[in-house]
Amino acid sequence: MDMKTTTAEFLDRIRTAAPLVHNITNFVVMNPSANILLATGASPVMAHSRKEVADMAAMAGALVLNIGTLAEKWIEAMVLAAKAANQRGIPVILDPVGAGATSYRTRTVKHILDETKISVIRGNASEVLSLAVDDVKTKGVDSSLSLSAEIGDAAGAIARQHGCIVAISGEIDLITDGNRVLRVANGVPLMTRVTGLGCGLSAVAGAFCAVARDDLLTATAAAFGFYGLCGELALGISDRPGSFYVAFLDSLYSVGSAEIREYLRIE
Amino acid sequence: MDMKTTTAEFLDRIRTAAPLVHNITNFVVMNPSANILLATGASPVMAHSRKEVADMAAMAGALVLNIGTLAEKWIEAMVLAAKAANQRGIPVILDPVGAGATSYRTRTVKHILDETKISVIRGNASEVLSLAVDDVKTKGVDSSLSLSAEIGDAAGAIARQHGCIVAISGEIDLITDGNRVLRVANGVPLMTRVTGLGCGLSAVAGAFCAVARDDLLTATAAAFGFYGLCGELALGISDRPGSFYVAFLDSLYSVGSAEIREYLRIE
Amino acid sequence: MDMKTTTAEFLDRIRTAAPLVHNITNFVVMNPSANILLATGASPVMAHSRKEVADMAAMAGALVLNIGTLAEKWIEAMVLAAKAANQRGIPVILDPVGAGATSYRTRTVKHILDETKISVIRGNASEVLSLAVDDVKTKGVDSSLSLSAEIGDAAGAIARQHGCIVAISGEIDLITDGNRVLRVANGVPLMTRVTGLGCGLSAVAGAFCAVARDDLLTATAAAFGFYGLCGELALGISDRPGSFYVAFLDSLYSVGSAEIREYLRIE
Repeated sequence: MDMKTTTAEFLDRIRTAAPLVHNITNFVVMNPSANILLATGASPVMAHSRKEVADMAAMAGALVLNIGTLAEKWIEAMVLAAKAANQRGIPVILDPVGAGATSYRTRTVKHILDETKISVIRGNASEVLSLAVDDVKTKGVDSSLSLSAEIGDAAGAIARQHGCIVAISGEIDLITDGNRVLRVANGVPLMTRVTGLGCGLSAVAGAFCAVARDDLLTATAAAFGFYGLCGELALGISDRPGSFYVAFLDSLYSVGSAEIREYLRIE
Repeated sequence: MDMKTTTAEFLDRIRTAAPLVHNITNFVVMNPSANILLATGASPVMAHSRKEVADMAAMAGALVLNIGTLAEKWIEAMVLAAKAANQRGIPVILDPVGAGATSYRTRTVKHILDETKISVIRGNASEVLSLAVDDVKTKGVDSSLSLSAEIGDAAGAIARQHGCIVAISGEIDLITDGNRVLRVANGVPLMTRVTGLGCGLSAVAGAFCAVARDDLLTATAAAFGFYGLCGELALGISDRPGSFYVAFLDSLYSVGSAEIREYLRIE
Repeated sequence: MDMKTTTAEFLDRIRTAAPLVHNITNFVVMNPSANILLATGASPVMAHSRKEVADMAAMAGALVLNIGTLAEKWIEAMVLAAKAANQRGIPVILDPVGAGATSYRTRTVKHILDETKISVIRGNASEVLSLAVDDVKTKGVDSSLSLSAEIGDAAGAIARQHGCIVAISGEIDLITDGNRVLRVANGVPLMTRVTGLGCGLSAVAGAFCAVARDDLLTATAAAFGFYGLCGELALGISDRPGSFYVAFLDSLYSVGSAEIREYLRIE
């Protein structure tokens, strides 16, 4: 099947099955992550207590870890939840927000990667590459690197090292399993002027992975294409961030196979 | 007085007195709960430190407890706050988010009910019934049970056991004190596609209880009717979740006795 | 330069330099604070772990502390971050949310002021004056005092005592360094019916201070004028809180020197 048919089918599955996506995520984006998942058709749950994360993750279709507002107990909860998900073959998405910005964040991401099996790492170039290259600097949570051949090589190396999908958001998104590479051209720059849209993409990647466990590379690329396409449609409604976000949520809810067939740009 | 006149009067009291509603609630919905209370006319405050919750609850017109993103210290704070509210006769609303989904949540709700006097329990059917029936399962925070005669019986039993109001959201909402039963037909399904609207209703029930302490059954039903009616008006503006939520906040702020008289459906 | 030219220039600097604003703020407003900073043109980061706040603050253009949902570890993090900022001459804005409402909050603000050097205190009258006057009472986070000559005197005394700017939001905002006084007439009452707009102003004051470190009095007044003006323009779009907030974010993003020249009212 081509990517347009596949993406439309995965989206149908999400809207039919409403997979439970368990998020251990940061305080800034909990609300938009939940709304983005609900608008897409998934069932979000946020739970972070070490007393229940294993139970919750074991029920979920996917687990999404996001280190945006990091703290000790939350890291322990992330590891517990990921181990429970690993035991049951539930996909685990890791969003290494701000990795590279402080040594605490970089260390934490490496700790999670050492202790658990991550299925998909989703971030911007500087965050993801901080896992490979010691001298990459991150300014806050914005990407300070543009996509290039070097980034592609580094992403592939990280994917092979951890046996996972690496997905880098940028002007052209790059998704690789270390062998195949998919590139997604959908998306608009205004998405970076609304907080949580990157984190929300990690959550939506979780929803797509939940309904396509046997091909996480394709599932992740489909999530990126669908998400970026909704951004493009929202930009057609408004080019200002307040009303753009409202239109974006509306698009996540209403976009179907017709728009996917017309606008999806994945190679 | 009929329910339409009563609901309009309670709403007037909220807008005149702007009662302080103290929320110890989950991270996902803190922002919409505050905005929903402000739009309705109440004064929200969120505070969870054990060092101040008793002081804050003692100043409030109502206390709202919500276990959506549970953790140990927060449970202790909830119990401290509820005891302070109990001493002063301040109504306490409990939203048992996800009760039944993990044993930790179910245990926590029972602990709060054992240690404090709850005035109103507000949730969906599976959450509320998890307090009574051991084999009820909750999928995330969505209701997995439809309303039925059995649910009504169980709700009444829980209300009598704890000497409180039990309010169950569903296609037709059911509010009971274990003796009388009120049913609210207002509301639209799209409200379940925006995160925090159920939790926001618990907060609004707190605002109504704050201005009608002598009849919490009526106050709770009035809150449900007003809230669902605002959802119906918002659906007239948009049938997509991003713009629907915006229109819903606008309705909470602008609805008055004219709309209540025309659209409220409580029996 | 007059305030209109200066405000427009500061805004240009923010949009060009995108200064990193490090927020240790409350759960209710993390999301709107981030969106408000992004719409204005700054780069927000939220981080509260004691293991990284000093590193993060040291990279920032400004640090914003907000005690809205207070807890012990967060206070320690605030002090650590402020000390790191102090060492590098990075401006520190303190928003004493609810000071005066509970003794815990009042004590905490005094502790932060004792342990660190605060550049700007931004709050409503009752919050700010609770730092000076023992019998001022705060109801939640709403101002219970109107601006008056007495408030101006007290604000000046606090500013001189702590060697900082004191900025009080009200019908007419008052900004003083204990010597000069600036008054800002921009703003609309509907801004108080959307949660986090006061806290968002503290964050925006941080962005302005980041690009004008040598004149924090002017920077803070410029932030107030720009922010209130965006509220006025948003009110021209909608007089209801849901759509007003959306229009407000849009205004923060789109307002430029033309609107500033036409509408700014600072003396």
